[in-house]
Amino acid sequence: MIQDTISSIKPLDTVAMEKCQIRLDNLTKPLGSLHALEHLARQLSGITGNPRPRTLKKSILIMAGDHGVATEELTASPQVATVQRVHQLSQGSAAINIFAAHVAADLLLVDMGIADEIPSLPSVRNEKIACATNNITQGPAMTREQAIKAIEIGITIANEEIKKGANVLGVGEMGIANTISSAAIIACYSQVPVATLAGEDSNLSQGLFDKKVAIINHSITINSPNRNDPVDVLAKLGGFETAGLVGVILGAAAGKASIVLDGLVTSAAALLAVKMAPQVKDYLIGSHFPPEPAHKVALDLIGIPAHLHLNISSGEGIGAALGMSLLNASLHVLNDMKTFGDAEVAVAQDGPGALKQDKNVKD
Amino acid sequence: MIQDTISSIKPLDTVAMEKCQIRLDNLTKPLGSLHALEHLARQLSGITGNPRPRTLKKSILIMAGDHGVATEELTASPQVATVQRVHQLSQGSAAINIFAAHVAADLLLVDMGIADEIPSLPSVRNEKIACATNNITQGPAMTREQAIKAIEIGITIANEEIKKGANVLGVGEMGIANTISSAAIIACYSQVPVATLAGEDSNLSQGLFDKKVAIINHSITINSPNRNDPVDVLAKLGGFETAGLVGVILGAAAGKASIVLDGLVTSAAALLAVKMAPQVKDYLIGSHFPPEPAHKVALDLIGIPAHLHLNISSGEGIGAALGMSLLNASLHVLNDMKTFGDAEVAVAQDGPGALKQDKNVKD
Repeated sequence: MIQDTISSIKPLDTVAMEKCQIRLDNLTKPLGSLHALEHLARQLSGITGNPRPRTLKKSILIMAGDHGVATEELTASPQVATVQRVHQLSQGSAAINIFAAHVAADLLLVDMGIADEIPSLPSVRNEKIACATNNITQGPAMTREQAIKAIEIGITIANEEIKKGANVLGVGEMGIANTISSAAIIACYSQVPVATLAGEDSNLSQGLFDKKVAIINHSITINSPNRNDPVDVLAKLGGFETAGLVGVILGAAAGKASIVLDGLVTSAAALLAVKMAPQVKDYLIGSHFPPEPAHKVALDLIGIPAHLHLNISSGEGIGAALGMSLLNASLHVLNDMKTFGDAEVAVAQDGPGALKQDKNVKD
Repeated sequence: MIQDTISSIKPLDTVAMEKCQIRLDNLTKPLGSLHALEHLARQLSGITGNPRPRTLKKSILIMAGDHGVATEELTASPQVATVQRVHQLSQGSAAINIFAAHVAADLLLVDMGIADEIPSLPSVRNEKIACATNNITQGPAMTREQAIKAIEIGITIANEEIKKGANVLGVGEMGIANTISSAAIIACYSQVPVATLAGEDSNLSQGLFDKKVAIINHSITINSPNRNDPVDVLAKLGGFETAGLVGVILGAAAGKASIVLDGLVTSAAALLAVKMAPQVKDYLIGSHFPPEPAHKVALDLIGIPAHLHLNISSGEGIGAALGMSLLNASLHVLNDMKTFGDAEVAVAQDGPGALKQDKNVKD
């Protein structure tokens, strides 16, 4: 199933993108002046195969799982916090409910491996593979079979959302200690020292920070993941939610849906997905920069930008929802602005031409 | 009038801010996890004097003016481009019309000194002080009297908008070569070398870039502005639109309205306003980072952040409009999220407490 999904990921529709670019270049503004918003509009046209996509149908998928490494007690949040947040989200009282509503995105939380049993709740889907991963300081987080199963669940869920009409999938996550797991994954592919990767704008004491760095280094040493085999890296260092996200990302790309990333855990999943299928990159859209520097390292390894510096540390897809609002803005530019032809601006003969030659030059 | 305005600028309402903070700290999320959005909500409460401001009434003021230094022919845009853009904006076909509509902001363009005569147009106000400033490579841009008059016009316009109900004023600008003027202003207050300040992500040839740096340095040398007298710096190196923006910013702060900045020219104006009245800083809200590094230098000198990295080079208030959408998001958090009390989450006895102690720690 994974190989079928990967082999069905197509390159972007360059004909649609060229037509989109022609419209962008004819809008009544200096050429290229809206930069990232124009890039996003062009990317959306390439993904959808439509030179002028009008509307987006959005869905935010939040994968949740617990991590054995949380027993190392590096974070102030106990694992029970995950259960609380699941209830809040299901009740509509979590932050992501507000943000998702404001971009008209559906919201689904998937229990990929929360330590506690979750009762049946609205907007929560049970795909629990196990009650938390194993402690990566002592061995692999999960078996290869579990990793593959979690990826396949992610693919299945992405396919279902796309079948329901979604063409933009936001990804988010919940899981105590999953930033440790994600930093370890990213460290396998980066030359950046773990002590730099693992830094964050938090109140971790020097002692706890040193312990975090030691845990990441030790987890990599003891598991010796094979970086040429992303599933091996995922199984040894990842989380069930991370594996589910890898599947969502692969499935979305195969189904020609844009993927809007959130924070560190989603960028680690995206990095693994790109290692499995490089063509996934074209479907990825970065949103914000959370406090963890490993996130930017992962985006740089993938080769995509992010746009929002708000220092939001929540995860849960909030960055993805804010990123979706930038996609909306890009389509407002593409669809609502007038072209020089439409506008019939009363100008001197060389007027619009002069404006249109104004590429990247700020007046 | 300027001194009266400055002396009527009050500190933020710390009682309202503390009440706002209590609500933020009781929302069903980890303490401080929405970082910049929480800062913005708290700032809005301090500015409005309301612990829980519900709605914002927004207005975007775009000041336009031409610059004598444009005759040095550093930019690809001819001055006539300004006239075209004024027409587009008045017709509703400029990019800013779309962005302003999406945040429900009123839009007013003020001709502070466009080189050409502008006919009477909807949404365009004539306050022309002169047809372009003088070339700053040969002497002062304007007289001190002109600078003061332009500031007073800006104050008057801000007052009018506030009287009409606005409590958030976005600022934008139009004017060929005004980034040169603004970089020169910022250079007066910064230790950053002009060659670094003047850089931008554009297609300027090395020869033109060197010329730009030489023009900025020469303009400062020949005019010897007194950095302890911001009006002197403004008159010698600024533009009529820059001076108008200084007035808008002072007037907005005096009228307890938030000021959402746009790109480089607005940050240069804000820097001068803060030099005239340091308490203005509390009313300023950064939005985006345009390609010009001098913008970030100015924000750092003022001591405020910006949040959007989109490389938008348009000016015209587009960054301010996008910044307003972040203000909306901050009020959605403040008003639409539930508190732990509201949510009545079924939790273990120590549950919400554990979450609330989770300050700045990503799980």
